[in-house]
Amino acid sequence: MRMYDIIAKKRDGRELTKEEIDFFIKGYVSGSIPDYQVSALLMAIYIKGLNKRETADLTISMANSGDMVDLSAIPGIKVDKHSTGGVGDTTTLITAPLVAACGVPVVKMSGRGLGHTGGTIDKLEAIPGFNVNLSIDHFTSIVNRIGLAVMSQTQNLVPADKLLYALRDVTATVESMPLIASSIMSKKIAAGADAIVLDVKAGSGAFMQNIDDAFMLAKEMVDIGNSVGRKTTAIVTDMNQPLGLAVGNALEVREAVDVLKGRVTGRLRDVSVLLAAYMLYTAGKCGTVDEARRLAENALISGQGARKLKEMIRAQGGDERIVEDTSLLPQPRKIIPFKADREGYISTIKTQEIGISAQLLGAGRTTKEDSIDPAVGIVMNKQLGDYVNKGDTIAEFYVNEEGRLAEALDIFHGAVSITSEKPERKPLVYGVVTSDKIERWQ
Amino acid sequence: MRMYDIIAKKRDGRELTKEEIDFFIKGYVSGSIPDYQVSALLMAIYIKGLNKRETADLTISMANSGDMVDLSAIPGIKVDKHSTGGVGDTTTLITAPLVAACGVPVVKMSGRGLGHTGGTIDKLEAIPGFNVNLSIDHFTSIVNRIGLAVMSQTQNLVPADKLLYALRDVTATVESMPLIASSIMSKKIAAGADAIVLDVKAGSGAFMQNIDDAFMLAKEMVDIGNSVGRKTTAIVTDMNQPLGLAVGNALEVREAVDVLKGRVTGRLRDVSVLLAAYMLYTAGKCGTVDEARRLAENALISGQGARKLKEMIRAQGGDERIVEDTSLLPQPRKIIPFKADREGYISTIKTQEIGISAQLLGAGRTTKEDSIDPAVGIVMNKQLGDYVNKGDTIAEFYVNEEGRLAEALDIFHGAVSITSEKPERKPLVYGVVTSDKIERWQ
Repeated sequence: MRMYDIIAKKRDGRELTKEEIDFFIKGYVSGSIPDYQVSALLMAIYIKGLNKRETADLTISMANSGDMVDLSAIPGIKVDKHSTGGVGDTTTLITAPLVAACGVPVVKMSGRGLGHTGGTIDKLEAIPGFNVNLSIDHFTSIVNRIGLAVMSQTQNLVPADKLLYALRDVTATVESMPLIASSIMSKKIAAGADAIVLDVKAGSGAFMQNIDDAFMLAKEMVDIGNSVGRKTTAIVTDMNQPLGLAVGNALEVREAVDVLKGRVTGRLRDVSVLLAAYMLYTAGKCGTVDEARRLAENALISGQGARKLKEMIRAQGGDERIVEDTSLLPQPRKIIPFKADREGYISTIKTQEIGISAQLLGAGRTTKEDSIDPAVGIVMNKQLGDYVNKGDTIAEFYVNEEGRLAEALDIFHGAVSITSEKPERKPLVYGVVTSDKIERWQ
Repeated sequence: MRMYDIIAKKRDGRELTKEEIDFFIKGYVSGSIPDYQVSALLMAIYIKGLNKRETADLTISMANSGDMVDLSAIPGIKVDKHSTGGVGDTTTLITAPLVAACGVPVVKMSGRGLGHTGGTIDKLEAIPGFNVNLSIDHFTSIVNRIGLAVMSQTQNLVPADKLLYALRDVTATVESMPLIASSIMSKKIAAGADAIVLDVKAGSGAFMQNIDDAFMLAKEMVDIGNSVGRKTTAIVTDMNQPLGLAVGNALEVREAVDVLKGRVTGRLRDVSVLLAAYMLYTAGKCGTVDEARRLAENALISGQGARKLKEMIRAQGGDERIVEDTSLLPQPRKIIPFKADREGYISTIKTQEIGISAQLLGAGRTTKEDSIDPAVGIVMNKQLGDYVNKGDTIAEFYVNEEGRLAEALDIFHGAVSITSEKPERKPLVYGVVTSDKIERWQ
């Protein structure tokens, strides 16, 4: 078998066999196939596509390229969740405790954020003392004791994805449906959960700006998961504004605590409860989604979710007192209000640029080596459709280092439009994709 | 400007600007753009194409990537020729002396062969003492004295093509019309001739197996040449069997001498005279192609062509006596006949496989480092449409090293089919492409 022939085959739009896909992934990870051949194949895949069978085979080959985590020491159906990424998207810190409180073990491996916002791991590290670097044994024992744990991906989880992603990033081959789907699902499959719930974002702050594309990606990933025996469900949700009000690591932890304590309602709470419901349903805890949703809501209202978060923080070495007193989280030197320069309705929020603005304050990384400042970020006071008077505070900037503050304010200014017409309300949830159907709610 | 954006633009099928093409070529040659980005772009170009303007700009950028040979010290309109490559294609050794004998200076830079047959340089080196490694000054002085010279490409001629070709060769992006056209024409333009005549081959032994593709490539190259002020013409000729009877370096020199001496007629002679006619015509020596053809034929019949070849061999340090006595060329240890195993008509000759068979005897290179055995090769006794009886000699194998002889004979056996029906006669010349029109003769 020769990589040359595999490239030529896909270049001509023909279907690759499982053996050819395995040969390519193994060869790339072992170093016998060079970057320049892989990038030619990636471009051919970008343009000519992969069918469902090829995408599933690619996913499995990638998952097999490193450690396949064995969580069989944890009894029951273990559930994981994954969001395709957005801004102010703190659902894991709310959803995982709610699901664990309902008796379904939550096993979550997360990555760090690269780009405009921190990842779940970065958010958890904003909690003083919190340790994300667990061994699988330690992780297993925590889940067996308290029902959930969140750890940083092991070093050798899907090395093929690390290599491919870095190459796609510099060869204009990132935005390919089968390549995105296989990248996400290979990591979920290797991470060992039995049930997987995906939150696929659509809108100005998401990978998929278009709703139809988001459903296609959701369907692709749900099919891959189910084809390899992992019960997989996806919800498609809106990312045309930050999901929560907070954008920044400690700020998002504070907001998650506020949701679990019942002090904050709205979009972040609603999506988190829905995700928790689908996790309970997909893991087989409830026969219907409605029942699962009632269970998740009860866990929130009763305070069991907040108590579970506290248990997890304690189990992973963090300062659990932050759940009762969020002022123990890292604080910024100053808070600067961003005021409306005119009156009217907030009509659009370029969500990705809100993320970039927070990144410039230090909340996200530009390169892998950058460190994150947990205290800084942006808190939105207003959402899409809100009416503001001139001088009203639209957002507050939490600032330590002011080097790029002017730039951050400038980008924020360009990202929020105010108009005299009230904008149409955007739905929060576009629908659900399960193994057997696509339900579009809007 | 970023290579990433250039890749993304072509990936999406958009037109690249001259500045973007220049940026890519300069960056690649200087080493600031890595192979893996270039191969992604090459695949995007392969699939999405380049328009005429982009192809011409790419050709110029490539030509400018190294030395642009200055032949202004040679008076008159200097002519060069190029064949897209075939098997048993020795036209340069016949055409160049004929044209020079008619008073038009012939300036030919050639490459070595990589693949199944030797290049012109390899053939000339089969002549004892012949020196192809001339400085431009020495080359110029020989042309000014005797009217022609053939030299090996200078080291720094179109370095962009060397890099791109090596990368295309391993990333399945060779067979792209704009990439082939720019590769050939960048070298012709950098080599400094005023007039260029191309011989584009079509058939089983050629790059372009299909006649329409061959015309498209011819048109593309003719347009590029004329757009940069080089008078360029192309003929499209048949390569469904070796052009001459000989395949191998010294063997082809012998056949070229035989044509110039009037001892051999047929396809090789006819294409060589036609090429010479178009070189004379394109260089402005004659007002019509018919007149140019008479001139070229006279040069052959009168023996002026053979005398010119002798002059060239002497001027470049070779043993000119081979023109009067071809047995002074390198000889093989043995000659093995290949006999027909049945009677019938020779109906197809897989020409590329004849080349590969000769290569296995040592007539061509597999890697750049391989050396060539000038004495070995194959001489066809029969051509397409000839009738053979069982036991008739179809070809003779000129052999020194017998290590891969069995394999060579086996490939040859599979390449020649004998049928009871007489096959249709293939035309020799399919047509001509000039700056203003495409003439299809068949």
